Amino acid sequence: MIRVTVWNEFLHEREHPEIAAVYPQGIHGCICGFLQQAGFDTKAATLDMDQHGLTEEVLDHTDVLIWWGHKAHQAVSDEVVQRVYDRVMNGMGLIVLHSGHASKIFRKLCGTDSWRLKWREDGETELLWNVAPAHEITRGIDDYIRIPHEEMYGEPFGIPAPDELVFISWFEGGEVFRSGVCYHRGKGRVFYFRPGHEAFPVYHMPEIQRVIVNACRWAAMPRQDEPKMGAHPQQITAYGDTYPIMDIRPNEFQTTAGLHDQL
Amino acid sequence: MIRVTVWNEFLHEREHPEIAAVYPQGIHGCICGFLQQAGFDTKAATLDMDQHGLTEEVLDHTDVLIWWGHKAHQAVSDEVVQRVYDRVMNGMGLIVLHSGHASKIFRKLCGTDSWRLKWREDGETELLWNVAPAHEITRGIDDYIRIPHEEMYGEPFGIPAPDELVFISWFEGGEVFRSGVCYHRGKGRVFYFRPGHEAFPVYHMPEIQRVIVNACRWAAMPRQDEPKMGAHPQQITAYGDTYPIMDIRPNEFQTTAGLHDQL
Amino acid sequence: MIRVTVWNEFLHEREHPEIAAVYPQGIHGCICGFLQQAGFDTKAATLDMDQHGLTEEVLDHTDVLIWWGHKAHQAVSDEVVQRVYDRVMNGMGLIVLHSGHASKIFRKLCGTDSWRLKWREDGETELLWNVAPAHEITRGIDDYIRIPHEEMYGEPFGIPAPDELVFISWFEGGEVFRSGVCYHRGKGRVFYFRPGHEAFPVYHMPEIQRVIVNACRWAAMPRQDEPKMGAHPQQITAYGDTYPIMDIRPNEFQTTAGLHDQL
Amino acid sequence: MIRVTVWNEFLHEREHPEIAAVYPQGIHGCICGFLQQAGFDTKAATLDMDQHGLTEEVLDHTDVLIWWGHKAHQAVSDEVVQRVYDRVMNGMGLIVLHSGHASKIFRKLCGTDSWRLKWREDGETELLWNVAPAHEITRGIDDYIRIPHEEMYGEPFGIPAPDELVFISWFEGGEVFRSGVCYHRGKGRVFYFRPGHEAFPVYHMPEIQRVIVNACRWAAMPRQDEPKMGAHPQQITAYGDTYPIMDIRPNEFQTTAGLHDQL
Repeated sequence: MIRVTVWNEFLHEREHPEIAAVYPQGIHGCICGFLQQAGFDTKAATLDMDQHGLTEEVLDHTDVLIWWGHKAHQAVSDEVVQRVYDRVMNGMGLIVLHSGHASKIFRKLCGTDSWRLKWREDGETELLWNVAPAHEITRGIDDYIRIPHEEMYGEPFGIPAPDELVFISWFEGGEVFRSGVCYHRGKGRVFYFRPGHEAFPVYHMPEIQRVIVNACRWAAMPRQDEPKMGAHPQQITAYGDTYPIMDIRPNEFQTTAGLHDQL
Repeated sequence: MIRVTVWNEFLHEREHPEIAAVYPQGIHGCICGFLQQAGFDTKAATLDMDQHGLTEEVLDHTDVLIWWGHKAHQAVSDEVVQRVYDRVMNGMGLIVLHSGHASKIFRKLCGTDSWRLKWREDGETELLWNVAPAHEITRGIDDYIRIPHEEMYGEPFGIPAPDELVFISWFEGGEVFRSGVCYHRGKGRVFYFRPGHEAFPVYHMPEIQRVIVNACRWAAMPRQDEPKMGAHPQQITAYGDTYPIMDIRPNEFQTTAGLHDQL
Repeated sequence: MIRVTVWNEFLHEREHPEIAAVYPQGIHGCICGFLQQAGFDTKAATLDMDQHGLTEEVLDHTDVLIWWGHKAHQAVSDEVVQRVYDRVMNGMGLIVLHSGHASKIFRKLCGTDSWRLKWREDGETELLWNVAPAHEITRGIDDYIRIPHEEMYGEPFGIPAPDELVFISWFEGGEVFRSGVCYHRGKGRVFYFRPGHEAFPVYHMPEIQRVIVNACRWAAMPRQDEPKMGAHPQQITAYGDTYPIMDIRPNEFQTTAGLHDQL
Repeated sequence: MIRVTVWNEFLHEREHPEIAAVYPQGIHGCICGFLQQAGFDTKAATLDMDQHGLTEEVLDHTDVLIWWGHKAHQAVSDEVVQRVYDRVMNGMGLIVLHSGHASKIFRKLCGTDSWRLKWREDGETELLWNVAPAHEITRGIDDYIRIPHEEMYGEPFGIPAPDELVFISWFEGGEVFRSGVCYHRGKGRVFYFRPGHEAFPVYHMPEIQRVIVNACRWAAMPRQDEPKMGAHPQQITAYGDTYPIMDIRPNEFQTTAGLHDQL
């Protein structure tokens, strides 16, 4: 059973009754709900918890982490960001939602100013086009998803060229946006998915839930690895100073093996 | 159960006793054998069969096609090549082995002169490095696979930049080669895997078998698709002349809708 | 001076006065005109010429070929398509415009059914978003180009994932499209650029002309190559059977060098 | 004239006479020398200078920055790293050499643990294979470059999948390595080039110099941009809250424009 931890900043829902009306259990509550129904083992973590709820122990039991944050990116401690980053390097999946594009962790994994984009909060129509119809993340998804009311995000979006481009959004006001993008970082899989402004009931939509469910399965794949066969069955990947596999022939030049140590 | 058809040219094994000694049941027999053990539903097809064994009916029951050919690429009919190509566009997986890099079907899918490479038949050592340790195709595979004796293939290899680069080979004589490369073509997944000169017992090696098993699972994924939800649940993807989703406002210019038909 | 050959099917302009009114000298005449002004050495070729105007001699003097075709893709001879393809493999640039997405040459270079897309001829607004603001092809181009009236093309577009994605289009009717995409094929650079329905004066727009001018410079780069230095200064790339660079040590296995020749 | 700043840690050359014998003017002196001959405007900067020699003023006059560091990555201030990063986002080129793979700036731009690799200091032969023969960076470079004595770096290398893979190295001891890799980060171009252990005279080799010269030209390209035409000629890219381009129709839902401000 795939274990998903849903992290939510959880501020808007407590500060504004209008937002609480959309997500009475918080955005994390809504997401945990449909993930459980889809058969995942879920738990929630929020900004206000000790270590934002992302202790080493919690991450030890997390195959995929979902991230929703907006107004308090700077309040997330650098230590926790590094901890999440290290887990991604070692194979934990990460799904970054909506305004999480500007989070510390996504910026660190992009290596670019991923906070750069256009935006407009006016509840216009978004059509989310599926441009990768054979991708695991678009299973069961038709040509496009129609979101009646959303915040607009517009290009140019400050991300690196995605390893896989899955969705492109159309907005009523004239903009387009790369709304579903995949990255491989270390052994981890990272998916950024645009929809989800807190004021609109976007995570209640079955199609959006389906994309997130698919993305969790996709992002969990590196965790399904198995014992290695091959040259050194017991070995984990060796980094650093390593012995040659093939003989290196004597040559006319004085080898500098250990030069740094000697000097 | 994933259905794999193994296509083999099946000439070397019948013409040369030395090769028959390596693959008494033919290369296809060897590959079908280890795939069955891994739980796949397999069948074989060879060049000399009617339509090379790749009738519409056979392909109707094929999720992944494996291709081994070498000396008779030109003997494969263009009609069968087109048939296989159409299936790949619609989601059938294709795994091209070794000298299949120069086959009609792989060249057609590459869009380049994929027959271009260096080669040398002298049984030298090949080390096959895993450069994508979190990929489905490298599950259970260590840093590298050592093949004691192989034919050399060397760069520059005339393929397009792969969508995913999985293995790079080292050869004793000094060459390197992009030996495991993934492409997405239409809805189909294509994997080219270099090892497998007919004179060496490469497909008897457990690590090589493991890569091919993994690749079959990876290539079969688009076949695990499900009924669509979204805008038009009953719809398959619409191509061609389509109605607008959003209203298009009247504008000052005379529309040319149907211009081609009128004229 | 970069030498550009502009190939045009040249049928619409002769069959329909409305189209002739938009392009009195033909689409090729319009494109040659602005390219000459930008400093290129240009010539035109059309379907009705001997060998469609694309003889070996013409291609000997072509650094970049521009391709506009629509209703007569099947009338282009396979021999000429192969000739153009061979030139691209060896470094000639190719810029495919608008309905050329379904041409034989572009399909052959894609390795996919690039004719697949949605379309609608109703003169709606297109906004062409620049998603690669540091690319050579977008030099001097702002966030987006507004085309007042165009034919719509919609996703999913049957191309392979582009090596570089440069433009994404927004259409008034709700669709998006990957409208500027780069591929590297052999030594050649290929750029597909969507705008240019024959009924609208799109190639008269300065911004569109600028993109095509930039694309010609980008696509001509492999032609600016120089004599090789390195291991074998006089050598061109060796393909086929090659000698080892490093000594291969004797090993216990009988080498099969020349096995194929002996047998 | 392209302006290149060559940054060198400059410690090995001052601490070890053996290294000083290889690079009497420092590695930066050697690199500045051949770049000047190739027609670049060069200057050097070293770790021990104020702000490591990378003040805002120096970077104001830098189109491409070259980076060589090894043992003192941690001594580079975070402020200077952020300054260099910001310049790359805005179009400055960056060429990272050899052990610079573990520098703060390259790790920040990769978004991965790019310090991860195998290494061995024993002066073995490296063959650097050109797998992108039509790339600007390989102009004038043959199939491979032979370096008689080098430190080994081996896969798996902890980088993200490169946007363009240019060189793959073969090492005598059996390893391979992605030795020339391109990334696009913001508006900047980044090239990592493996060769250059301080103990071997690698930067004195004409082929290696040629690659670095080519890479400087490639990395400087975004600086050759020009005034924008298009929708808003005077405009720089707008980020943040933006007005719609197209009219947004009234709809049944109460717009939330300005919701965040009101609340």
